Amino acid sequence: MLRSIAMPRDSKNWDLLLTDANVATMVEEGPAYGTIRDAALAISDGRIAWLGAAGELPEANITQTRSLEGRWITPALIDCHTHLVFGGNRAQEFEQRLQGASYEEIARAGGGIMSTVNATRAASAETLLKQTQARLQLLRAEGCATVEIKSGYGLNLDAELKILEVVRELARSADITIRSTFLGAHAIPIEFKNDSDGYIDLVCAEMLPAVHERGLADAVDAYCESIAFSTEQIARVFETAQARGLPVKLHADQLSDGGGAALAAEFSALSADHLEYTTGGGIDALANAGTVAVLLPGAFLTLGETQLPPIERLRDKGVPIAIATDCNPGTSPVCSLRTTMSLATSLFKLTPEECLAGVTRNAAAALGLDEDRGTLATGKRADLAVWDIDHPQVLSYWIGTNELSELYVGGQPL
Amino acid sequence: MLRSIAMPRDSKNWDLLLTDANVATMVEEGPAYGTIRDAALAISDGRIAWLGAAGELPEANITQTRSLEGRWITPALIDCHTHLVFGGNRAQEFEQRLQGASYEEIARAGGGIMSTVNATRAASAETLLKQTQARLQLLRAEGCATVEIKSGYGLNLDAELKILEVVRELARSADITIRSTFLGAHAIPIEFKNDSDGYIDLVCAEMLPAVHERGLADAVDAYCESIAFSTEQIARVFETAQARGLPVKLHADQLSDGGGAALAAEFSALSADHLEYTTGGGIDALANAGTVAVLLPGAFLTLGETQLPPIERLRDKGVPIAIATDCNPGTSPVCSLRTTMSLATSLFKLTPEECLAGVTRNAAAALGLDEDRGTLATGKRADLAVWDIDHPQVLSYWIGTNELSELYVGGQPL
Repeated sequence: MLRSIAMPRDSKNWDLLLTDANVATMVEEGPAYGTIRDAALAISDGRIAWLGAAGELPEANITQTRSLEGRWITPALIDCHTHLVFGGNRAQEFEQRLQGASYEEIARAGGGIMSTVNATRAASAETLLKQTQARLQLLRAEGCATVEIKSGYGLNLDAELKILEVVRELARSADITIRSTFLGAHAIPIEFKNDSDGYIDLVCAEMLPAVHERGLADAVDAYCESIAFSTEQIARVFETAQARGLPVKLHADQLSDGGGAALAAEFSALSADHLEYTTGGGIDALANAGTVAVLLPGAFLTLGETQLPPIERLRDKGVPIAIATDCNPGTSPVCSLRTTMSLATSLFKLTPEECLAGVTRNAAAALGLDEDRGTLATGKRADLAVWDIDHPQVLSYWIGTNELSELYVGGQPL
Repeated sequence: MLRSIAMPRDSKNWDLLLTDANVATMVEEGPAYGTIRDAALAISDGRIAWLGAAGELPEANITQTRSLEGRWITPALIDCHTHLVFGGNRAQEFEQRLQGASYEEIARAGGGIMSTVNATRAASAETLLKQTQARLQLLRAEGCATVEIKSGYGLNLDAELKILEVVRELARSADITIRSTFLGAHAIPIEFKNDSDGYIDLVCAEMLPAVHERGLADAVDAYCESIAFSTEQIARVFETAQARGLPVKLHADQLSDGGGAALAAEFSALSADHLEYTTGGGIDALANAGTVAVLLPGAFLTLGETQLPPIERLRDKGVPIAIATDCNPGTSPVCSLRTTMSLATSLFKLTPEECLAGVTRNAAAALGLDEDRGTLATGKRADLAVWDIDHPQVLSYWIGTNELSELYVGGQPL
């Protein structure tokens, strides 16, 4: 439906008006889901120019009007924690583990994260680009307009730069937004097996500066765990990042309470991710720092975890909760944000509204993009998902369905 | 690639030869997955005319040859337990439960299975047909060529007939096989709240005969549980079914050990489904009867079950294990057999090979179709799934991906 109406010069100019919609703005205050029924939404220059009940629509010059016939508009989805660029796969190791092989046997047979590091180092940038594009397409098809991608399967200067250049090439070629995170301190590479401090030296003195000088990262992440890096080592990485003006994030307290959440808070991290073993002090620190808790049900499921993240206490303290796929070949072979939302209800007992906030408002905050995305309001980017549903609770309910009708990115339908 | 070769009259005539394939025949004996590498598969009159290593290919008149370029062929998938025909949805109740409402509060607010019964009774056959076609399409897109659908949301003669006629119409209109199961004894309808025996009388005296006379069911199922029907009541249903030559199946021991597995075995049921609480004697009985154990990880996940089905003992006793979506709006809102396979690995620790056998060989047996389907061998129906994978273990590994390249049903590519 195209409609062009001549209007006085001083009135508003809108590129597109979406009518006959229900809108879940996902703003925190007000009704559940920030719902506006029988609403309209106007787009101008890629941003939301007006949003409200259809009955309150002001006069405007409207280039195009489209009826959504009762469909729902939500903020486009955001996957704020992925490891989408990797070589090879770990299906064989996955099978061996289910056949009863121990982690030690798998490591001896060349499995584990180092097998992904080796395959990623060996892969060409072209191969990595092509394989990642296919994964990205799966997320986009479900309504994701912003996807974060971490490095961390290179673990040396050349391979980390290769991964981050692939991420930047994805950002250039994709029609959705890609955010890049440098995760050099993901695991101790074989070359530094007995010298993790030496690897942290390399990360801080060479890798992080090289990444930063090339403009390849929007943030810096690290893995705080007994099998990875200590809080002291990560503090060095974070200090180096912050000296260069890069925000930080942290894989924290996934397998044990290692003080990761408190460390993340101390550095005002954008997010602290996993958090299964975080206890009271860490949660208080996150709340005080305004750090987002990113929960990752795919990894919880795949690892057969039994220790639940401290949901009640995060709620009590008002820590914003995001959820993400953690898409990776070892511990979360999950390339569906919608399935992740369902898993967050069944495994973590998050409500459907918490799940949707977790992939919109709070996921935007976990990437430092909440000024512009994650909720629907005048002035924000028009990143919109349009759904054939009768209520947004449906989005966390079914596994295996896809009710996405349209995805708008910066006001443009894809 | 089309190739037609003139051959002597007495040689074989093949409609289609698939070459450059790896085949997972899923026959029980021999190598893992019944694998034949560098294989070819010939189709004639909708059936597998020849199957083996490419080097052993005999001479034949071949109408068409296609290279699969190293892709894998498996038996087409089979979803052997679904409740795909239903009215309404239970997203609101799903949300209320996660917001902390008790089952009692939900029932008082009109939720629970009776809300689906009411919505299904109220829906037109056309609406049910259209909605079910959409769900069926999701399963077909993942490689399912055979889907079982149960009635059971009607719970009176007219509504059960309506559902089963929708299933038969689906069978006529779909290009895949639909098997129909009469599940009149699914729950006690409100009209018989205090007279479950009276409802069983109705099922046996009127509903089952009417269903059978119209040729609307391939099998009869029932729900054995303290909140549904007793073993004595179900024995009456099963006797009525068997007197009419209909095979039986049973929802058994899902929430408590109610002797369901033993009852199913006593009636040589095709399958006993759920089985979380089945103990030793029941498992021995299943093994002796050759009854398939159908496990339903979607329901286990959705209900937050902690009691695992007795996997080890089923394995020890050689009970064939199938897995299925249990797709239904209340306890398993899952419309993906691939995700179900992944859930069976993470929740039940089934191996990827057990998962694939569970949706091919053993799922065929759970429907009484194993003579013809579920494995690849000369003479069987050419129901084939072709996958862009480097090993069939991948099919139980990723969540959210779909590597299906082609689906052949009765030798025809869809």
